[in-house]
Amino acid sequence: MRQAGRYMPEYRAIREKLSFIEMCRRPEVAAEVTLQPVAAFDLDAAIIFADILLPLEGMGIGFHFAEGEGPVIEHPVRQASDLDAVRPAEPREDLPYVLEAIRLVRAGLHGRLPLIGFAGAPFTLASYIVEGGHSRAYALVKGLMYSDQLAWDRLMEVVTETVSRYLLAQLEAGAQCLQLFDSWVGALAPYDYEKYVAPYTRAVLARVSGRGAPVIHFVNGATGMLPLVRAQGGDVIGVDWRIDLDRAWDEIGHDVAIQGNLDPVVLLGPQTGIEERVADILRRAAGRPGHIFNLGHGILPQTPPDNVRFLVDAVHRLSPRVAG
Amino acid sequence: MRQAGRYMPEYRAIREKLSFIEMCRRPEVAAEVTLQPVAAFDLDAAIIFADILLPLEGMGIGFHFAEGEGPVIEHPVRQASDLDAVRPAEPREDLPYVLEAIRLVRAGLHGRLPLIGFAGAPFTLASYIVEGGHSRAYALVKGLMYSDQLAWDRLMEVVTETVSRYLLAQLEAGAQCLQLFDSWVGALAPYDYEKYVAPYTRAVLARVSGRGAPVIHFVNGATGMLPLVRAQGGDVIGVDWRIDLDRAWDEIGHDVAIQGNLDPVVLLGPQTGIEERVADILRRAAGRPGHIFNLGHGILPQTPPDNVRFLVDAVHRLSPRVAG
Repeated sequence: MRQAGRYMPEYRAIREKLSFIEMCRRPEVAAEVTLQPVAAFDLDAAIIFADILLPLEGMGIGFHFAEGEGPVIEHPVRQASDLDAVRPAEPREDLPYVLEAIRLVRAGLHGRLPLIGFAGAPFTLASYIVEGGHSRAYALVKGLMYSDQLAWDRLMEVVTETVSRYLLAQLEAGAQCLQLFDSWVGALAPYDYEKYVAPYTRAVLARVSGRGAPVIHFVNGATGMLPLVRAQGGDVIGVDWRIDLDRAWDEIGHDVAIQGNLDPVVLLGPQTGIEERVADILRRAAGRPGHIFNLGHGILPQTPPDNVRFLVDAVHRLSPRVAG
Repeated sequence: MRQAGRYMPEYRAIREKLSFIEMCRRPEVAAEVTLQPVAAFDLDAAIIFADILLPLEGMGIGFHFAEGEGPVIEHPVRQASDLDAVRPAEPREDLPYVLEAIRLVRAGLHGRLPLIGFAGAPFTLASYIVEGGHSRAYALVKGLMYSDQLAWDRLMEVVTETVSRYLLAQLEAGAQCLQLFDSWVGALAPYDYEKYVAPYTRAVLARVSGRGAPVIHFVNGATGMLPLVRAQGGDVIGVDWRIDLDRAWDEIGHDVAIQGNLDPVVLLGPQTGIEERVADILRRAAGRPGHIFNLGHGILPQTPPDNVRFLVDAVHRLSPRVAG
């Protein structure tokens, strides 16, 4: 879950010289920052350094990152006519730098750890494309689905095709696990999720599943509809911290694996608190195979690296040993 | 749920002449805008026009509303020493204008509809007091609870005392129902809610319950911990739209009433969509006594008043008739 980043001094040293987007677009830099946390902490997997918005440019949707404000979509899609220039991206032409970074990281890891590739889920990407950036009420993206379902479906089809192709290309480049991030799906009522969103999420998950790489379906804020989320697919369901892990696992069913679920803010606090929370989550996982310990969302930039190290070590120290 | 407001032209006509805070502090104006939606729509109850932050000033915590940015707390509480000047507010001295507005609205309603009073729940108020305004990660408020539980408890005790006194004073002034708004409690893990927040929420609800006025305990974003929320008290649990109403009711138990749960954004869309969603919510309520139809959070300023009228009428038209 966003292992590399501003919380690491090694990352900031590079970031001082390059913009975030330049870092993403230079495969050797993206590979280097992907490997920084692997070198610093005793992690069990690496996740490629990239941004979920990278595929937008190839779709004909320009964007940039405004300092302190987050992403800005230059021409947000608000009506059917805004879709005329929008097309599915071609990962090999539009995102070769991500695929090359994956190849470089695989070479750098020498098989020591598996590498996770990822993409934004259709609703989360559509929310940026329509809202134009971060949103509080998601009124514009919901407004489009409610008022013009034809245009909404056109947009979601293009996003779905793009995300599917992108994840398949990451697999081909060497990703050994895939994660689909539905970070803003928690804005939706189950009614809207099922009607306007789930068919597209399901289509992506169906396209990329069963190809030898486990698929993690991560949702944020969707604790009120976990059975519905699980029904769309994924070998692993990733959940945030707003529900106890045992309760979430009961809801999604013990025939799928679960990822989670520490609040990233806990990492800002004292280490006694971190240990207390790790113990609680592991107790709720009850030693069952199929729990991947992780944060419930991205790590915060102000996180002390020492606390990340403490967390990783506490998870290993407190986890039951697997026999054999 | 925030009936009065910018979506009404009658409200905007007054707002052009007075600041939001002046409107709150003039009892005759607050009473007038409280009655505006009652005159315009066929509602079943009125809710007093006020803001959950009004009690802060009497606690010694200054704030103002910055245009387009929301509330700004002038000296946020970040450590124990910031609490030295903080004290429980005295509603009769610090908030006489709200109490007078309640008396005026009761007189204006002539017993036709019940009047709801309200306050912010301890965590929601504390989150503003510590964060200084709106927040995305709630890192500062969680940071305080994790790193200095003594200071956190001091703050929560003052907030709890203030909110309890304020709600009791509203009852005495004539409020016939009370609502406690825990708008930001959805930022918390159940673990943190139980340890740092629930005792204070429970204390407020215990103080104000059993006095002849039903108490609505509203939570936003807390769909992953509804049984825990319900355990803190309230005659009615108010839920957002992120969970199906029947599922939420099963989780809180059918021995309490439920309020909800339409996404306010639905009111921006076409009326066919509004009707479809009203029918779905009423179907899930299954004609059981104890469902109060409401929005899942505050109405948006850009809502067309005609859609509010359509909603209210659709709820009445599609609700099963109560015998007798």
